[in-house]
Amino acid sequence: MNLSAYPGIFNSSNTKQRGDTAMPELKCVSQSIHVDLKTGCDIKNITQEVNNVIKENKITIGMVNIFVIGSTGSVTTIEYEPGVVEDLKHAINTLAPVGVEYAHEKAWHDGNGHSHVQAALIGPSLTIPIHSGKMKLGTWQQLVAVNHDNHSRARKIEITITGV
Amino acid sequence: MNLSAYPGIFNSSNTKQRGDTAMPELKCVSQSIHVDLKTGCDIKNITQEVNNVIKENKITIGMVNIFVIGSTGSVTTIEYEPGVVEDLKHAINTLAPVGVEYAHEKAWHDGNGHSHVQAALIGPSLTIPIHSGKMKLGTWQQLVAVNHDNHSRARKIEITITGV
Amino acid sequence: MNLSAYPGIFNSSNTKQRGDTAMPELKCVSQSIHVDLKTGCDIKNITQEVNNVIKENKITIGMVNIFVIGSTGSVTTIEYEPGVVEDLKHAINTLAPVGVEYAHEKAWHDGNGHSHVQAALIGPSLTIPIHSGKMKLGTWQQLVAVNHDNHSRARKIEITITGV
Repeated sequence: MNLSAYPGIFNSSNTKQRGDTAMPELKCVSQSIHVDLKTGCDIKNITQEVNNVIKENKITIGMVNIFVIGSTGSVTTIEYEPGVVEDLKHAINTLAPVGVEYAHEKAWHDGNGHSHVQAALIGPSLTIPIHSGKMKLGTWQQLVAVNHDNHSRARKIEITITGV
Repeated sequence: MNLSAYPGIFNSSNTKQRGDTAMPELKCVSQSIHVDLKTGCDIKNITQEVNNVIKENKITIGMVNIFVIGSTGSVTTIEYEPGVVEDLKHAINTLAPVGVEYAHEKAWHDGNGHSHVQAALIGPSLTIPIHSGKMKLGTWQQLVAVNHDNHSRARKIEITITGV
Repeated sequence: MNLSAYPGIFNSSNTKQRGDTAMPELKCVSQSIHVDLKTGCDIKNITQEVNNVIKENKITIGMVNIFVIGSTGSVTTIEYEPGVVEDLKHAINTLAPVGVEYAHEKAWHDGNGHSHVQAALIGPSLTIPIHSGKMKLGTWQQLVAVNHDNHSRARKIEITITGV
C-alpha cells in the first residue's frame, strides 16, 4: 500500500468512490496475548508481540490499544535497556514501597497492597499509533508490560485495533 | 453474534462480502455521563455506568475511551474494595499533599493547587477494550473516577466508542 | 452537520440506509506535528495544534490519540496557567529528581536518567474525545506536551483520529 498516495487520511467510503484504486475499509481487531512475568516489579519488552498481532491482521495504519487484564499490572514505554529498567523499578517502588502498612493488607493478608497502588498510578492502558504496519515508536522507545504483583503472573493483555 | 465464527477480526466491508452472514459495520458513539463525586480525594466505581452506555448502543466489540472533563479529575482501574481505595488516596495525597505551598495558590487562592497536580499525574483518559458487549476487565478490576478537587463536583465524563 | 439529529450514535452504514440524509463514514487520520520544546521540564500547550489537525481533516466527532515519539517526552492535561505549570514541574522533579544516581547514567553518561523515569511515569499517550469539530476539553483544561530531556527537542507528536 503506497501511503504517499493518500496523505494522512483514510476514509472507509473510498472503496466505493475510487474504483480500481480502492482502499481497504476500517477494521476492528480484538485479540489477546499472554505474557509471562516474574514477581514484581518485573518489566518486559512486549513490542514484538504487539507488532505481530498488527502484522497478522494486515493493519497498515490506525491505532492500537494495549490493556492489561487485572489490577496489579500496567503498561508504559521506555528505552528498554538494563539501566532504565532498574531506575524505573526503583521509582515505582518509591511511589508505593513494599513493607509499609496498607489497608488492603488488613482485610486480605495477601501481601500485595503495594502492587495495587503501583498499578493504579502507572495505569493499565496505552494507545499507540500504527504506521507502515507496525507501532510508530521512537528508535529508542519500546512498549513494556509491568507486573507489580508479589508472585509471577501469566498476564493476559488485550490488543484492540482500529485501522485499515 | 457468534464471536467464535470471526476469530478476532471485524471488517466494516464484510456486510457487502458475506451476504446472509453480514456483520455490523464500525460505529462511533459519543455520549456523556454525569457522576457525583465528593470532596477529593473521592474515588468512585463507574464500571456499571460505562457498561450501560455500551449496552444501550448495542456495541459488542471494540474500544471505549473514558475522559474526565476538567483539570481536577482523573480515571484509572483498581480492585474496588475499601482497603485499596484508602491506600490509593494515601498515595495520591503523598504525590501532591494538601497544605504545602503551590504557585497556583498565590494567583488564584482557591485552595486546590494539590488537586491540579494530582489530576495531571494520574491523567484524565483511559481506553478499555470492549468484548461480549461490555468492558473487558479482570474479575477484580473496576473502572474508577477520581475527584481531586477541594469541593464536591458533578463530573461530566465523556464516553467515546469505536466498535461494532 | 446537525448533531442533534443523531443523538450520540454514528454508524458507517448509514450512508446506504438514509439516502438523502446520508452521514459521513468513519475515517482514520494519521498525521504528525512537530513541537519545539526547551530543556526539561518544559511544558507546552499544544491544544491549538491538535485542533488544527482535526479541523483540516473535517472530523466532527470521534476520538483523537496524541502520542509522543521518544522515551523522554510525555502528554497530559492541565489548566494551563503559570502557577500550575510551575507546580507540575516541581512534582515531576520530585518523582525522579535531577542529580541523584541513575543506573542509566552508569552505562550511557548522557545525564538524562531522570528524564527517562519521569516520562515513563507520566506516559507518552493520551486519547481525547472529539465533539463539534474539536477536542472536548473543560474550559480550564488544556492539552500539554512535556519535554523531560536535558536538552531542547523538536518533538515529533503523532496525531491519530478515528471519527466522522
